[in-house]
Amino acid sequence: MSSNIEIIGIRGIPIIRPGDDLASIIVESARNMGVGIKDGDIIVITHVVVARAEGKIIRLDEVEPSELARRIAEEVGKDPRHVEVILRESKSILRIHNGIIISRTKHGIICANAGVDASNTSENNSVVTLPDDPDLSAKKIRERIEKLTGSQVAVIISDTQGRPFRRGLINVAIGCSGIQPLWDRRGEVDLFGRVLRSKITCVVDELCSAAELVIGQAAEGIPVAIIRGYKYIRDDIPASVILREKYEELFI
Amino acid sequence: MSSNIEIIGIRGIPIIRPGDDLASIIVESARNMGVGIKDGDIIVITHVVVARAEGKIIRLDEVEPSELARRIAEEVGKDPRHVEVILRESKSILRIHNGIIISRTKHGIICANAGVDASNTSENNSVVTLPDDPDLSAKKIRERIEKLTGSQVAVIISDTQGRPFRRGLINVAIGCSGIQPLWDRRGEVDLFGRVLRSKITCVVDELCSAAELVIGQAAEGIPVAIIRGYKYIRDDIPASVILREKYEELFI
Repeated sequence: MSSNIEIIGIRGIPIIRPGDDLASIIVESARNMGVGIKDGDIIVITHVVVARAEGKIIRLDEVEPSELARRIAEEVGKDPRHVEVILRESKSILRIHNGIIISRTKHGIICANAGVDASNTSENNSVVTLPDDPDLSAKKIRERIEKLTGSQVAVIISDTQGRPFRRGLINVAIGCSGIQPLWDRRGEVDLFGRVLRSKITCVVDELCSAAELVIGQAAEGIPVAIIRGYKYIRDDIPASVILREKYEELFI
Repeated sequence: MSSNIEIIGIRGIPIIRPGDDLASIIVESARNMGVGIKDGDIIVITHVVVARAEGKIIRLDEVEPSELARRIAEEVGKDPRHVEVILRESKSILRIHNGIIISRTKHGIICANAGVDASNTSENNSVVTLPDDPDLSAKKIRERIEKLTGSQVAVIISDTQGRPFRRGLINVAIGCSGIQPLWDRRGEVDLFGRVLRSKITCVVDELCSAAELVIGQAAEGIPVAIIRGYKYIRDDIPASVILREKYEELFI
């Protein structure tokens, strides 16, 4: 267990465009800051820059909204073409309320507007979707960073999401590579010798929330953070294991 | 916006007993470690030690379970007296499933087993409840730390909780003092000049998740963390503002 952890916001990352080599931009920016990338670093990246690098920018004037998209758009007060993209990214719709469409995305993530983001797009009248396979994106970026630096790292792709019961958004993981996402501590013993029975910590979600303390979506322009000093278990389990199956979900 | 944040686990905190002056134990332990408490520090404290200091330890052999508690206990496979304490701490029950009772506590928090914890109690056959008023507890600890150190700080009391849709537990805030819990960024402009429409960040939850990277519930015995370098808005709004009202909740 670590007892001292550093969260470093990576400055100087330019606006990412389709086709950009995000990994090498991160490596270079970290080097320019004088912090570099070290063995054991965890690199948390806002999904929007990953999606932008992968060209997941959709021009709304090329989208033809369906009749359903038009009707929902009227209900929620959004551009029908934006709603059409949300529907295309969704497997099912859970709730429509107060301007927000809560759906299960094609990846199985339950979130607002299927993660389709209208902010952080330079192109007028365009939206950014989530990456097609955030775990694969994380893996590719990790491998490239490791090749460029010779350091063993973990990569986590984060999204800012609302949640039931509690107001306000927090950052969670939608993809990861090189780190065990869930830390199963059942069977460990507490300070008083009692065995923990239900302690599985979602480490990658907590790391994303920690990273958001330096990552800003607005004027600051810091889309990437390094978390240094946290000892994690290296593994190749995808972040998709965090998503609960329908049968175990009590609140749908 | 900060670009470099430190998370420091406070070592050497002894097992807290009813009546202990938790604030001065934290101050002393931080001093012994050589890190001290500085202006702007955020001190995140696991609820269990706060509850223990406040004497919220209930001996099960003094609890007489009701008929309802007995029946639920059979269903979930828990000690009926433990269930009785859970019921006493609850305003309403939302779900009973797979050994877990999900209820709304008397504070309005929706969580498993009303936050009644059977681990981390030295006393055999006893349980620890949440503090009666975690925001008030945070306020008292903050004022005492500020008096002892002369530094202006924020105090957050954390709990480890499950959540719908996603596996694994994360740390969230159940009480706070000296910090604005929700950071409303609506109206700010993104990198591309677009106005953010729905960005309210639950800062104190993210700080609790960050703190859990050093706080361990088991063998490590680190119940308190200092987060240093994060610029927050000083305020006296309680963490209870995070709890959504029934009418705005879509998943009950």
